[in-house]
Amino acid sequence: MGDLVKVVVDAMGGDFAPEEPVKGAVDAVRENAEIYVCLVGKEELIRRELEKYTYPKERVEIVPASEVIETGEPPVKAIQAKKDSSLVVGLTMVRKGQADAIVSSGSTGAVLVGGQAIVRKIKGVERAPLAPLIPTERGVSLLIDCGASVDARPSHLSQFAVMGSIYMEYVMGVKNPKVALVNIGAEEEKGNELVKGTFPLLKANKNINFIGNIEARDIPAGKADVIVTEAFVGNVILKMYEGVGAVLIRKVKEGMLNSLRSKIGALLVKPALKKTLKGFDVSEYGGAPLLGLRGLVVKTHGSSRAVEFKNSILQCIQFKEQDLSGKIQEHLAAEEKVEGEN
Amino acid sequence: MGDLVKVVVDAMGGDFAPEEPVKGAVDAVRENAEIYVCLVGKEELIRRELEKYTYPKERVEIVPASEVIETGEPPVKAIQAKKDSSLVVGLTMVRKGQADAIVSSGSTGAVLVGGQAIVRKIKGVERAPLAPLIPTERGVSLLIDCGASVDARPSHLSQFAVMGSIYMEYVMGVKNPKVALVNIGAEEEKGNELVKGTFPLLKANKNINFIGNIEARDIPAGKADVIVTEAFVGNVILKMYEGVGAVLIRKVKEGMLNSLRSKIGALLVKPALKKTLKGFDVSEYGGAPLLGLRGLVVKTHGSSRAVEFKNSILQCIQFKEQDLSGKIQEHLAAEEKVEGEN
Repeated sequence: MGDLVKVVVDAMGGDFAPEEPVKGAVDAVRENAEIYVCLVGKEELIRRELEKYTYPKERVEIVPASEVIETGEPPVKAIQAKKDSSLVVGLTMVRKGQADAIVSSGSTGAVLVGGQAIVRKIKGVERAPLAPLIPTERGVSLLIDCGASVDARPSHLSQFAVMGSIYMEYVMGVKNPKVALVNIGAEEEKGNELVKGTFPLLKANKNINFIGNIEARDIPAGKADVIVTEAFVGNVILKMYEGVGAVLIRKVKEGMLNSLRSKIGALLVKPALKKTLKGFDVSEYGGAPLLGLRGLVVKTHGSSRAVEFKNSILQCIQFKEQDLSGKIQEHLAAEEKVEGEN
Repeated sequence: MGDLVKVVVDAMGGDFAPEEPVKGAVDAVRENAEIYVCLVGKEELIRRELEKYTYPKERVEIVPASEVIETGEPPVKAIQAKKDSSLVVGLTMVRKGQADAIVSSGSTGAVLVGGQAIVRKIKGVERAPLAPLIPTERGVSLLIDCGASVDARPSHLSQFAVMGSIYMEYVMGVKNPKVALVNIGAEEEKGNELVKGTFPLLKANKNINFIGNIEARDIPAGKADVIVTEAFVGNVILKMYEGVGAVLIRKVKEGMLNSLRSKIGALLVKPALKKTLKGFDVSEYGGAPLLGLRGLVVKTHGSSRAVEFKNSILQCIQFKEQDLSGKIQEHLAAEEKVEGEN
């Protein structure tokens, strides 16, 4: 096996399990010869799905797990109680070094709790942030944090900035990524206590390319590559993307069907419009890494389809090859040293 | 004068002063015979603008003020130093009961600080929230708070809910308005400390129609009439509306111009599209009341045009006729009493 990237796929997580995660896994091993996939979950169900496809069998393995964590379950309790769930079994494989990464579309809470409790944080990391990629006018940005922890402190946000910057540089290939702090104005003195406490930390950090505050209005325009904020605000930003986008698209469609003239026009613009809107759909960039852990945990959208599973699995290659966990550990250790010397 | 509604218009505030505020004032007195407008600012400039129009002269007055507060000035200092600015002179008229309301498109910070310092809060009001109307799929909702104060406490949000509910019911005519609390999930136990502390207060309040938590994704769909949140998150919601909307519209236009086929289609759908998008533009609903004060202070968007000034001026009629300040005072006093009895 040597240099293969071994990715666990939670075959029981998400709205379309096991069909879509299994199909995504098959597509990933077909597309890239470095990928080795472990499908975790109910053996019989997974086997039945796999039978639909032809694929390199030597790079797909089934790992049986008899339980499933449902979306509504309280995360901490579920992780503790369901030891033989696909998620817990998969996370444990990452912890033990039997796999490099896990991709799950299951309950966000359970993935967050399980990731921190089972895979565990890198030494020095205070909190592990969930960092989805969001579409912008210029490409994509990393929104960090987006659900892992509320009521954050400035030191947390400072670490998020470093981890996000490393991710964008080494996994996404953005040179010297621009880091910005979400605020209600561009001026340094604006904002709440958390933001005012975070700004000087980011400004003083020579390892990141901090460009200052960013107003939410400038996020979709792509003015920064790494958008630093605490989880509550991050969640609101992500959900506003979805909400405004969905309503606007429905309105545009409705508006176009209001007259014969525009109905004809609508038919003509439909293909172009569809393509455009697809590129601006948050769920297209389904794989959000939970950063700062000793292995890679990727959370994909609950309604993920095969293509998102595939993309999330392929994302793991860069993560492993670039030794992202190692880089994060180094950077944070270097900063602690600087702080200690001051 | 009797039953006239006397509205001060800050003729020097905003990107298009004095042209647009003056035109908006003229349009308002022309449209509604109950409106009396006091245009505050540099007399000569205002007079020159007024000469362009014919209008009922007995309901338009110029109140001279020699100074102007600029957008970049630190608000507290500006309010203290520029006693003869259009904003301070106008707010002072409201405070002295010489006018019922003021509409200003000037610096948000200065309007907020000036409103609280000069017009002053109603007895019992802890903080005066800024509450813009935002477009939704079903109409409009009130987003409260949106910039007046960061680092809020549960008791503040509880008052915001009451004030917002009164505004939507008596000014906007929404019967029994649905009140929701912005959270990162629909479940009661989710969220940060502020939200967890606020939820039980809203749930226990029998004077509002509290429907529970709302995720940001459901705000544009119009699932609630009054959206309660603290100012930082409120600001992010408002700015995301603008940002996602602007980028999506640019993308749609670009996408449609990519092929001849869709170019022809674009020409046909253009009028329908324009109309649709206008209805979903945050700046169309420019007038955000600063609630909880002893008079009405309405902040309009910095780039407001005459139509927004006119609408904001007309909005003041309901506010006065329904005695909103009186209703807010009554409700808060009643609640204090209930709390005292418990």
